[in-house]
Amino acid sequence: MDLAARVLSGDRLALARLLTQIENEQAEGLDALSAIYLHTGRAHLVGITGASGTGKSTLVNQLALCLRHSQQPEADRPPTVAVVAVDPSSPFTGGAILGDRIRMRDLAGDPGVFIRSMASRGALGGLARATGAVVEALDAAGFEVILIETVGAGQTEVDIARMAHTTVVVDAPGLGDDVQAIKAGILEIADILVVNKADLPGAEHTLRLLRTTLEIGQPTRRLLRPEEAEGQTSAAPWTPPVLPTVATRGDGVPDLAEAIRGHLRHLQASGELRQRRRERVRTEMEDLLHQHLASRWMSNQLDGVFETAVERVLNREIAPRQAIAGLVEGESTEK
Amino acid sequence: MDLAARVLSGDRLALARLLTQIENEQAEGLDALSAIYLHTGRAHLVGITGASGTGKSTLVNQLALCLRHSQQPEADRPPTVAVVAVDPSSPFTGGAILGDRIRMRDLAGDPGVFIRSMASRGALGGLARATGAVVEALDAAGFEVILIETVGAGQTEVDIARMAHTTVVVDAPGLGDDVQAIKAGILEIADILVVNKADLPGAEHTLRLLRTTLEIGQPTRRLLRPEEAEGQTSAAPWTPPVLPTVATRGDGVPDLAEAIRGHLRHLQASGELRQRRRERVRTEMEDLLHQHLASRWMSNQLDGVFETAVERVLNREIAPRQAIAGLVEGESTEK
Repeated sequence: MDLAARVLSGDRLALARLLTQIENEQAEGLDALSAIYLHTGRAHLVGITGASGTGKSTLVNQLALCLRHSQQPEADRPPTVAVVAVDPSSPFTGGAILGDRIRMRDLAGDPGVFIRSMASRGALGGLARATGAVVEALDAAGFEVILIETVGAGQTEVDIARMAHTTVVVDAPGLGDDVQAIKAGILEIADILVVNKADLPGAEHTLRLLRTTLEIGQPTRRLLRPEEAEGQTSAAPWTPPVLPTVATRGDGVPDLAEAIRGHLRHLQASGELRQRRRERVRTEMEDLLHQHLASRWMSNQLDGVFETAVERVLNREIAPRQAIAGLVEGESTEK
Repeated sequence: MDLAARVLSGDRLALARLLTQIENEQAEGLDALSAIYLHTGRAHLVGITGASGTGKSTLVNQLALCLRHSQQPEADRPPTVAVVAVDPSSPFTGGAILGDRIRMRDLAGDPGVFIRSMASRGALGGLARATGAVVEALDAAGFEVILIETVGAGQTEVDIARMAHTTVVVDAPGLGDDVQAIKAGILEIADILVVNKADLPGAEHTLRLLRTTLEIGQPTRRLLRPEEAEGQTSAAPWTPPVLPTVATRGDGVPDLAEAIRGHLRHLQASGELRQRRRERVRTEMEDLLHQHLASRWMSNQLDGVFETAVERVLNREIAPRQAIAGLVEGESTEK
């Protein structure tokens, strides 16, 4: 049985191997990914992001645990859950993430849970792309909820949040200036807001500030209290609830799980789910098109043509745009 | 006189107009940028990044002020300074940055200073590219030091830091967990570390933690005290100094200015300056090549070909990689 078939049959070792091949951009892994692509599209992709120090990893672990112990009326068993922990900073912090996972013994023995840490390993630019491919593989392998955990509010996090159906942004009291600590740009991508460490002094203040900031940013939106969030009708525009949690004790985590399910129902009923998927597919295909065209073009050039152009630009004999136009259009770049 | 010539002659209104055209990707601006490209390469590009709440903007203002009042033995006047304040989050925060600049009255009246704020305005992906083009224009316009200020530690910040010759990372006490607050990934790109708000309780702790974190990350590097940093010989590997500042009072800012000049001398003497420029030019040209090839390919397609492929992928009739290979190689994508 080939790797793709083994992944589809539920073989976890095969899945781990496929993910490594995908991360390393090995041809075998990418071919297997194409082979299993037709089995994707069933998972609920949930992005969870926020600054470090918010207790986000603990919250993700508790959320996975909660989902695995939940029983939904429409299902005969709890959903299977995959966690992808993405750290755009160096391998430096990979150990900490791993350590955190290992401490989470409640999850470790559960065959319905799969955990994968991803670090940048040098090529930062490709991390969002690699994460997308890893998530596709987990989706095809049959995981029903995929939690994608990222740190921070930079381009990578926004790119990764874009691939999720539901984006949860986590804040906590005491992280310096509250209004600044959670950047407006990341608030705009939030479907659900969480104030973790809600037992700390200042939690009420943080909750209030977030609600106010959301109201300023989205004056037409009325904000909901947690108990209202569940009852949102699916056709109306979604209003991000602001939920308090204490992840270390599991407080508020069932409410968060329910808000996440509520958002999925909203996406399905409103047709937004298909729209988000379309945007994601288009972005991925534009990226692949760029890669494909560039590598095809490069393979048709004499060795060193591009490097020579780089050198001429470096010597300020020609501007970058002129050099590229000359290379691609086959015009002479000689002066 | 055309726009390019006016910019080169020192016309500030022409420069502001060119920068707007570049940000909007107007053809006129990009042509003018090509025309003035041969005049670039003289500026010292200094990236300044760090989390919000570190007082980074105040530090940048004070640094600009300090540079404008410094007298170097080898120069007959202080260097001209441009500040590019980049905020990858939404236009939301643009006002705050602008307000901060306006409050900085000491800089406002100085013709040797030029300040430009850049917000993402939707297309987050293009911000690093637009910043690069704006910096090139400021370089060609004759600014000798260009301070590029960014918020956070995400992909955009790392991309922007890569275009700088010297990268300053700013931290401050009291921003939650110190070791986490300043991510290892951003530490790796730091040439100089600053602990601002060094008059706050916990500053000594933050300084110590940063030095320890650097030592763990770079075990072969011995860390220097501020007074040692100035005397680094240029041929030896650079060791990032960790400098305390109180930007609101200007304390420590002259030491920071001297460390920045010291790093430039190091880059020049070691040959690293040319190497960094080469990497930057290569990245920019690869990006331009991708854009150029994609737009040329698109213009040769029948309307809707790409959209049809997106639709087929969305319906899971074909995997993304197969669809792109089919489109580009002209193979039939029919089943």
